[in-house]
Amino acid sequence: MSNPQPALTFEEIRALVRNLPGPDLDAGTAAVQRERTLTKPPGSLGRLEELAEWLATWQGQHPPEVRRPRVAVFAGNHGVAARGVSAYPTEVTAQMVANFQNGGAAVNQLCEAADADLRVYELDLEHPTRDFTQGPAMGEDECCRAMAYGMMAVEMGVQLLALGEMGIGNSTSAAAICAALFGGDAAGWVGRGTGVDEDGLKRKVAAVETGLKANPTAKDDPFEALRCLGGYELAAIAGAILAARMARVPVLLDGYACTAAAAVLFKADRRALDHCVVAHRSVEPGHTRLLETIGKQPVLDLGMRLGEGSGAALAINIVKAAAACHAGMATFASAGVTDRA
Amino acid sequence: MSNPQPALTFEEIRALVRNLPGPDLDAGTAAVQRERTLTKPPGSLGRLEELAEWLATWQGQHPPEVRRPRVAVFAGNHGVAARGVSAYPTEVTAQMVANFQNGGAAVNQLCEAADADLRVYELDLEHPTRDFTQGPAMGEDECCRAMAYGMMAVEMGVQLLALGEMGIGNSTSAAAICAALFGGDAAGWVGRGTGVDEDGLKRKVAAVETGLKANPTAKDDPFEALRCLGGYELAAIAGAILAARMARVPVLLDGYACTAAAAVLFKADRRALDHCVVAHRSVEPGHTRLLETIGKQPVLDLGMRLGEGSGAALAINIVKAAAACHAGMATFASAGVTDRA
Repeated sequence: MSNPQPALTFEEIRALVRNLPGPDLDAGTAAVQRERTLTKPPGSLGRLEELAEWLATWQGQHPPEVRRPRVAVFAGNHGVAARGVSAYPTEVTAQMVANFQNGGAAVNQLCEAADADLRVYELDLEHPTRDFTQGPAMGEDECCRAMAYGMMAVEMGVQLLALGEMGIGNSTSAAAICAALFGGDAAGWVGRGTGVDEDGLKRKVAAVETGLKANPTAKDDPFEALRCLGGYELAAIAGAILAARMARVPVLLDGYACTAAAAVLFKADRRALDHCVVAHRSVEPGHTRLLETIGKQPVLDLGMRLGEGSGAALAINIVKAAAACHAGMATFASAGVTDRA
Repeated sequence: MSNPQPALTFEEIRALVRNLPGPDLDAGTAAVQRERTLTKPPGSLGRLEELAEWLATWQGQHPPEVRRPRVAVFAGNHGVAARGVSAYPTEVTAQMVANFQNGGAAVNQLCEAADADLRVYELDLEHPTRDFTQGPAMGEDECCRAMAYGMMAVEMGVQLLALGEMGIGNSTSAAAICAALFGGDAAGWVGRGTGVDEDGLKRKVAAVETGLKANPTAKDDPFEALRCLGGYELAAIAGAILAARMARVPVLLDGYACTAAAAVLFKADRRALDHCVVAHRSVEPGHTRLLETIGKQPVLDLGMRLGEGSGAALAINIVKAAAACHAGMATFASAGVTDRA
């Protein structure tokens, strides 16, 4: 890691996870009560009502606001990419970061469409993590520094944080993390990622199987799974999620790699992702399996599998719409509309 | 109908349906070709890519544009409401129209969030259609005038038309239309609408069964189904869909009542809804059955069941995002990103 961060240890991170702030039930209850008065049949806005209540609960304010959403995209390189697990070469990670910076990627358009602030965080792209088929991808210090780096995405004033990643090889890393956290065959967690062929898929499965054998501690502890099988950008996402919880910023998670990073925290404490909503269901089959495992229902299901925060950015306008309906609609009383008996 | 419209007859409408403009394959092909060059794995934006191609194909231009979307909400009253088929009294239709005009409804907030123009069209709310359990809801002249009225929603410059409805009792009308068009038990097309109880549900089923018996011509011809079992706002939606096709304006359909009105055209010609995308899947079980019947996959599935164009308005930002990615992303060549072999 080229940018040294304030030292953190797994022990300190475990202490953070044990002491995460809980829901603001007053704000959540106020949202539930207001929903009942608005000019619509009860429950008829479905998920939009749930999103408004979730925002209030985890922002700790009523009415909730989404005037300042941020999309944070973390980029890192993976030693395991050398195993031929991606349809694209490793240099594409840095090329896509440049594309983000120049405004040419999907996430740029999606941020503009959502009027969201886009921040791109590079994590030492010149120095990939080590190939996890040969042993741990990171040392504890490297993993913790990446987590601390991710925490910087949560700044004063951000009202909703959408998280994404860029890292050639990271759907293999995500599959390995999920297999370590939740068990099951490697093949059940591996998919085609950016579009590998049949042989590439076999290489991905083999890499995950070898990685699990080469890192026996990964199954014993979620942070060991992250350290041994993860990557800098995935560790940064886990850090950002923790920082958001502490700062009362609700989080939108993107696809498979992003949700796998989040799942490390879920495994550490089942309440750790209560402030997070999964923005969309990725085509990657492991994502659906992971969503069932962590009990999350995605907002969107549009056949996307791009990463780079694209699904999370796209869902921002849905969350904004939920907040707008909640705050801006008239009540039966104020509009003079007859409520049902 | 208080506002007489230029006379139209079913015969003229049938002629329109026979001569609908087809897809612009040049524009559609240009969209497909551009998608392949953009900085993302092929197909990785999933439905967004399909939406961009659909927009180009039916706007007849490449790149497609969604700078001027319109939400058109048609409101009408239904004689069948007297059968106790809704959780709300009939006067709520006019009260909600006032709420739309005063900016207090969900669709107002959703239009603002999508930067869409909202137009509300009242169809003689003081004079409901006749109770279809006693015979035809409308005469041919009334039905055709409502269709012609709906055509007015398509004005120069509108680039995407989202359609919705407001009409106490119209989910019963929608169920009756679907049963007439596609057969099957009444109960299979009836749901709880705005939230009727078990007895209300039975009354809805009974009304549909009685309505089908009282209107034997409804099963023979889709426009007879619309005339006998529909309502002014549903006829207006069918008219708006036809006018949009002729003016090369892609259409977003809202929930069950809106899609049932559209299904009249599908039954008349299977290609008649090719320029339409269903914006969301309603909770109403008949909607899912109808979507399968007409072969449409909804964009959103958020547990909504409000009507008033809310789901269609919410999907506008998804369509905008699709157009923005399509037009604004860099290509592999322009961004210097390595494409896969």
